[in-house]
Amino acid sequence: MEQLIIKNAKLNGATTDILIENGRFKTFAPHITPSQEQCELFDACGMTIVPPFFNAHTHAAMTLFRGFADDIELFDWLNNYIWPAEAKLTPYDVYCGSKLAILEMIKSGTVFFNDMYWFQEETIRAAEEMGVRAAVGLLFLEDENGNIAERNVRGNQKLLEMKKQQLFSDRITLTLAPHAVYTVSERNLRRVEELAEELKLPVHIHLAETAREVQECRKEHSGLSPVEYLASLGLLNRNLIAAHSVHLSNYDIEMLADAQAVLVHMPCSNMKLNSGAFRFADAFKAGCRIALGTDGCASNNNLSMFDEMKFAALAAKREDNSPTAAPADYVFNIATTGGAEAFGIDSGEISPGKLADAVLINTDSSYLTGGEFIPGMVYSADSSVVDSVICNGRIIMKHRVVPGEKQIIEEGRKCAAKLRAK
Amino acid sequence: MEQLIIKNAKLNGATTDILIENGRFKTFAPHITPSQEQCELFDACGMTIVPPFFNAHTHAAMTLFRGFADDIELFDWLNNYIWPAEAKLTPYDVYCGSKLAILEMIKSGTVFFNDMYWFQEETIRAAEEMGVRAAVGLLFLEDENGNIAERNVRGNQKLLEMKKQQLFSDRITLTLAPHAVYTVSERNLRRVEELAEELKLPVHIHLAETAREVQECRKEHSGLSPVEYLASLGLLNRNLIAAHSVHLSNYDIEMLADAQAVLVHMPCSNMKLNSGAFRFADAFKAGCRIALGTDGCASNNNLSMFDEMKFAALAAKREDNSPTAAPADYVFNIATTGGAEAFGIDSGEISPGKLADAVLINTDSSYLTGGEFIPGMVYSADSSVVDSVICNGRIIMKHRVVPGEKQIIEEGRKCAAKLRAK
Repeated sequence: MEQLIIKNAKLNGATTDILIENGRFKTFAPHITPSQEQCELFDACGMTIVPPFFNAHTHAAMTLFRGFADDIELFDWLNNYIWPAEAKLTPYDVYCGSKLAILEMIKSGTVFFNDMYWFQEETIRAAEEMGVRAAVGLLFLEDENGNIAERNVRGNQKLLEMKKQQLFSDRITLTLAPHAVYTVSERNLRRVEELAEELKLPVHIHLAETAREVQECRKEHSGLSPVEYLASLGLLNRNLIAAHSVHLSNYDIEMLADAQAVLVHMPCSNMKLNSGAFRFADAFKAGCRIALGTDGCASNNNLSMFDEMKFAALAAKREDNSPTAAPADYVFNIATTGGAEAFGIDSGEISPGKLADAVLINTDSSYLTGGEFIPGMVYSADSSVVDSVICNGRIIMKHRVVPGEKQIIEEGRKCAAKLRAK
Repeated sequence: MEQLIIKNAKLNGATTDILIENGRFKTFAPHITPSQEQCELFDACGMTIVPPFFNAHTHAAMTLFRGFADDIELFDWLNNYIWPAEAKLTPYDVYCGSKLAILEMIKSGTVFFNDMYWFQEETIRAAEEMGVRAAVGLLFLEDENGNIAERNVRGNQKLLEMKKQQLFSDRITLTLAPHAVYTVSERNLRRVEELAEELKLPVHIHLAETAREVQECRKEHSGLSPVEYLASLGLLNRNLIAAHSVHLSNYDIEMLADAQAVLVHMPCSNMKLNSGAFRFADAFKAGCRIALGTDGCASNNNLSMFDEMKFAALAAKREDNSPTAAPADYVFNIATTGGAEAFGIDSGEISPGKLADAVLINTDSSYLTGGEFIPGMVYSADSSVVDSVICNGRIIMKHRVVPGEKQIIEEGRKCAAKLRAK
């Protein structure tokens, strides 16, 4: 039996010991002593234990493209920088880029990411090695003949085979990831819908990210918005993860709320690429399920949920013209507890029985002095307050040290340099 | 003679040693050996040396009010939270709050702040002790009879006396700080103008922060905007530091550009209080001098220029409807070199003869892997990449340790708790 005892942690203002057994929180009491010899102890004196972050939309390996092409127009960015560089990616690049991404996520308190990219088995390998959780998408992107690209088909089959043979742990789950309504045809989206039924998997898609996407969708699909179009295909439901969801009509918002689909808000990426502004206050008022994501590092340019929370909270105030929009406790919740809920992970709360995922915050940081209210971190903190991170009952960062980080950075740097070379 | 040699630092891509003598950069060469026995050595292997941040508008002691009243309307915030709490402030609170603020600034790579608050001698004491630079304002705020409040008058006289007697180092400078056009009458603003002439001091004022301020100014002053009104009083010139400058007409922007006044942009505070959006792209195109500031911790809620840079760069893209607005190198420049220039500090560049202010960045951080372009930090980094900070030739933070930080946090916490108590 694996045991970990966290000593002297602050939880909701009180000091407590916490016993973690076989990956789950078991007992919370003032003094817990080990009941077996094999028991790891962690002294959390001076630290507050909080739920970790769940990053609801990433392209992890794109960490290699950080700063590759900033401050330029979207289509210039895609056509002349990102796509040509991506064409050169090898499985090893994706492995190294994913490890670099996961290192960055752990350092900033994130234990889960929902990914959409190629060479997914490499991302799974990286997540397994580093001890985090990931949802990895079976990618659907079409070739010029309107068929799912051959390498996607092979990659997806491989993932399903790996799942069948239980070649990865239960920290890893799969999604179906059609890229977007403008890159996957109706025929293939219908196939995705059937597969989702058959395999009982969530569907993860970029949705209504740009005004152009909405315009073209309405033109091609009898006036339907991307949300309405997905609804017509039977894809609008609780298992839909709609990344971006920027350009929404009132009716779209109503439908998304009714369906209880997950809207993934990514304020940094939307602002950096000037995609438009998510209607945060409206989606919130309508009762939509909202999660937070960072997107990839080429359009953010980091994976820190601290940045994402602050941008979400402040941008909503600007867009809604009200300083009361997107209050800190709500934003903190959707980045943590709500994120876990959105992906059906039995975690996101520091309480008995839950999967033992947690962040130990060093409250002896100036950023947390004054504001004793934990969600106040939304406005004041950055990744420097994260002391240690626990995922599935294991300490994956201890006092800011992640095993192997020097090598991860060196390898990431090499891959990034190679991809940049003309 | 005080000597410090920085060994093996990366500067613009090359590795160099740097000799600092009597507070200024002297020699840059591959191998420098000490020429005297008393010489401090600092090994910067694996680090890049960059100019530090200059925070162009703060109320440092308000760090004590961090998280005191978030997510509420501006006038509720001022009337029911901030002003009643400020009425209880003692000089010791301002001392402790300033030290906490300076600790936070050093930890995030800032060596200078331009402050406006009470009990200024306590802020000066804090800045002197911690080794940073500060511009401290002689405050002008009126009592109910339209006279400068008695405690301001006394405080201001004391500051001038301290300056005359050289009771503070040349790291500290003074400004004249009339609070705003709506809190200081025409008569007293004219007095400020005379004093600015006489004492050769810059004038630091909150300007055009809210739509209401502009409306009321136009009503009271024959249709003049706040910028036009200051111009009519002879206050619009190169020595004007205009904090916020949010609600500007095209004509205002033209006048500010012609006068070469300094516009202090504070995106976080403006968004959090929903004051409105600074016209970044327009001010930039008009050739305005722009600096970056954090404002106080009650409306941000931190003093990290990393947050401020990212918000400035991304918000400008949203407001200007273009992903090319506010490119990283420009934003990095106004937070560093441009900030020093705005305050007439002979610093902000890592080159021979300049005052030796610098930040040593740990480039072995995931945040900086991939993007090797230093201004790329604007999008990707946070305070965790700051390893060490040098101000005026002295190391004020070494490997993330600031002398006395534990006590500063403890005292700050006590003061904050006291001020919050009903």
